[in-house]
Amino acid sequence: MEGLPKRAACIGGGVIGAGWVARLLLAGVDVTVHDPAPDAERVVREVLANAERATARLVSAPLPPQGTLRFAASVEAAVAGADFIQESVPERLELKRRVLGAIDAAAPADALIGSSTSGLLPSDLQAEMAHPERLVVAHPFNPVYLLPLVELVAGRQTSPEAVARATALYEGLGMKAVVIRREIEAFVGDRLLEALWREALWLVNDDVASVEEIDDIIRYSFGLRWAQMGLFQTYRIAGGEAGMRHFLAQFGPALKWPWTKLMDVPDLDDALVAKIAGQSDAQAGGLGVRALERIRDDNLVAMVRALAAEQGGAGWGAGALLRQHEARLRAVAGPAPEAAPLRLTEGEVSDAWIDYNGHMTESRYLQVFGETTDALLARIGAGTDYVAGGHSYYTVETHIRHLGEMKQGEAFHTTTQILGTDAKRIRLLHRIHGGDGGLRATAEQMLVHVDMQAGRAAPAAPEVLAALAAIAEPHRALPIPAEAGRGIADLR
Amino acid sequence: MEGLPKRAACIGGGVIGAGWVARLLLAGVDVTVHDPAPDAERVVREVLANAERATARLVSAPLPPQGTLRFAASVEAAVAGADFIQESVPERLELKRRVLGAIDAAAPADALIGSSTSGLLPSDLQAEMAHPERLVVAHPFNPVYLLPLVELVAGRQTSPEAVARATALYEGLGMKAVVIRREIEAFVGDRLLEALWREALWLVNDDVASVEEIDDIIRYSFGLRWAQMGLFQTYRIAGGEAGMRHFLAQFGPALKWPWTKLMDVPDLDDALVAKIAGQSDAQAGGLGVRALERIRDDNLVAMVRALAAEQGGAGWGAGALLRQHEARLRAVAGPAPEAAPLRLTEGEVSDAWIDYNGHMTESRYLQVFGETTDALLARIGAGTDYVAGGHSYYTVETHIRHLGEMKQGEAFHTTTQILGTDAKRIRLLHRIHGGDGGLRATAEQMLVHVDMQAGRAAPAAPEVLAALAAIAEPHRALPIPAEAGRGIADLR
Repeated sequence: MEGLPKRAACIGGGVIGAGWVARLLLAGVDVTVHDPAPDAERVVREVLANAERATARLVSAPLPPQGTLRFAASVEAAVAGADFIQESVPERLELKRRVLGAIDAAAPADALIGSSTSGLLPSDLQAEMAHPERLVVAHPFNPVYLLPLVELVAGRQTSPEAVARATALYEGLGMKAVVIRREIEAFVGDRLLEALWREALWLVNDDVASVEEIDDIIRYSFGLRWAQMGLFQTYRIAGGEAGMRHFLAQFGPALKWPWTKLMDVPDLDDALVAKIAGQSDAQAGGLGVRALERIRDDNLVAMVRALAAEQGGAGWGAGALLRQHEARLRAVAGPAPEAAPLRLTEGEVSDAWIDYNGHMTESRYLQVFGETTDALLARIGAGTDYVAGGHSYYTVETHIRHLGEMKQGEAFHTTTQILGTDAKRIRLLHRIHGGDGGLRATAEQMLVHVDMQAGRAAPAAPEVLAALAAIAEPHRALPIPAEAGRGIADLR
Repeated sequence: MEGLPKRAACIGGGVIGAGWVARLLLAGVDVTVHDPAPDAERVVREVLANAERATARLVSAPLPPQGTLRFAASVEAAVAGADFIQESVPERLELKRRVLGAIDAAAPADALIGSSTSGLLPSDLQAEMAHPERLVVAHPFNPVYLLPLVELVAGRQTSPEAVARATALYEGLGMKAVVIRREIEAFVGDRLLEALWREALWLVNDDVASVEEIDDIIRYSFGLRWAQMGLFQTYRIAGGEAGMRHFLAQFGPALKWPWTKLMDVPDLDDALVAKIAGQSDAQAGGLGVRALERIRDDNLVAMVRALAAEQGGAGWGAGALLRQHEARLRAVAGPAPEAAPLRLTEGEVSDAWIDYNGHMTESRYLQVFGETTDALLARIGAGTDYVAGGHSYYTVETHIRHLGEMKQGEAFHTTTQILGTDAKRIRLLHRIHGGDGGLRATAEQMLVHVDMQAGRAAPAAPEVLAALAAIAEPHRALPIPAEAGRGIADLR
């Protein structure tokens, strides 16, 4: 995909470094990792497993073949031949400088270098590099494989070309790159987080609220607001018809109120650490960090996919970004051979698709079948552009048969066989195959081509019928299953 | 419903007051509003229209009959006979005291009083009341009809009984009540918001980022985290296997860094106001506040419903709260008469259900039909408890016919006719009716009763069969539609 590196190195394989490794591998990039920690490979593989699971649930487009993961014993061995290096070592200026110096000396001179620092100035990091122009701070948010934001910050010696190249690279990984206009410590995201975190520590310290109560206060109120609109747009709406100026006039004076705690930093002494840790243990209710990670990831996937369904399917916020990424992935995947039933979509059964029986919820079957129909229509040139022109295929009938259970986490793909066509209709059979290739469900459908303005069936455009025929003709050789055309058995 | 008032008064009908009016009316409570502003009634009715739309999309359980809305010319007239009063007048101590004094004098002595203040101390508000023990700060978040959080804060003279009564009342409205342990100005939510807001103002003032860039930084990263887990639980996971203590040890030192802007308050002078307002206008891209409100509400509904689908349908965070509220609403609604096709579910076609054709997406039909099947199974005693015992009805076949278009915002309800039963099977026909009562779609289904352990069909429990028969017997008198049992027409 455009912008992606050919061969990447990741120096540092902790939670953040491993998140980058996973994003790169799942985008099809080969990655070599160096981290001197004895358990680095274990951490990387655990994060990768989480990322594989989450990405399969998040992205409905076909993913490229996963890149190859290698581990190297030294920085030099890791970066040799790499055209992109992401540095994610611990947050100490001297250490980062030393590691970046080693990367700088051993990597090809035109390789791009991103630093994951969450607070250090890029000008300080690049001060002693021989090729400082290719260093960009690229600060991500945990979990790196799911949260799309990356803050890009240039140092004094960073070239505009490096910033442009980094923007294209991280966007190729499905991320939202925001270029920070001036370098300051902690950039923007962590500035905001720090401010809120300090205040939260005071609230716990002073027994105004427990950590669980503070979390509830956030997630039942402004957390939901901020997941989709952020701060200023939310306040713009709160200002009502009078707009942002009115809101500032109303809200501004409160800034002068004597909420003095904000000005101080609480002492993170043993007593406060013990209080927070104890309350946090109580809040977790015995759930381990692996279980909490899964819950967090599933929630994030569900929310982003919900946002992707907004705006008539174009998506909003992180959901719109996902839609754009999926479109790029589909374009890269290109057409499949069409001699057999077409393989059109693939995915994995998400937790959220599971009903109280422990099986995939009924409507998710039709969601999968519907997305398969959409993929077919896009393939024959009857997708969104065609619909914008006033014509569309409508589904008028669907007959689903459930033949096997779809279990949580199971990989699946769909195939489509055209049973018959005429100028106005398509009769087809979709099949869902499970991870073992076995048949899980079928859907026979009748689609009718409609002139949307006139509100009635009409012949499809010649170029659509030609594209349809190119698929349908070879399918005439395929056997039509005996159950096609049958109804549900009588029972009185 | 338990905890709900019989008759409420809302004093102040701005955006917040109107949000309370809408929550109360949609919970079936009669509300009298007093607000001296000439456009108060218009604002209240506009917010109510937004709330009706959002609530119909959010809540899948039947809503009670809407309460009656009245407007009164004085505080005294509004509160006469009310057992609950919510005060939402502008945020000035003297004004609030005067209004609360008038409420206190005119309302029944045992009426509960909630104040929407976002920052004033309840002890200050109640200082001059004759019955101060029944005043509780109940601070909501905009949009009040969608965001579930209410912060409850007791003043020195507030009785524990009033806090308990307020908790039950707001929970009856579908809200998450968090009782703040000590009264401080701005409580907890706005303390956190203020801290972040000040920092954001500095970032704009210093040209580090624009308002749109700051919003993007929030909504593509920690906004998504906070919508589902808040601050501490998120950091607990970030600490990894080493837990919260490790996280604090790692993160604590950063608190001492010289990020000095946090300690100051920026001057909201004309230049800064103009800069923020100008950037905000650019960000809105010509969308008016009404359009932004709809987008915000739709996003919130979609995210909360996505969270409601997590944890195997039990929901997480705001989604779990919604599930609990729906269960209470269903319990209150009780059983319907069963002489005709059963009316089991109702709802409204959400924006998110609309595909690129402008019609309801295919899979949403089966979602509606599936929820109808679930409602039927719950009715005959084969719901989640029964499944936990190891038996369940599985859908093995579904035949959907699309007979009319479902448009955005359209109200609908479903009916179910039992076509036939035996010890192991149910054959039924669901129908979706649109707002005009017209038929939009049908689904014929065959359900098979399964012993989940053995993985095979088995007779249902006698009490389930008895409950099923009580519905199925009268349905034998209903005509079976000619198309039942038919398959999809041949076309080659």
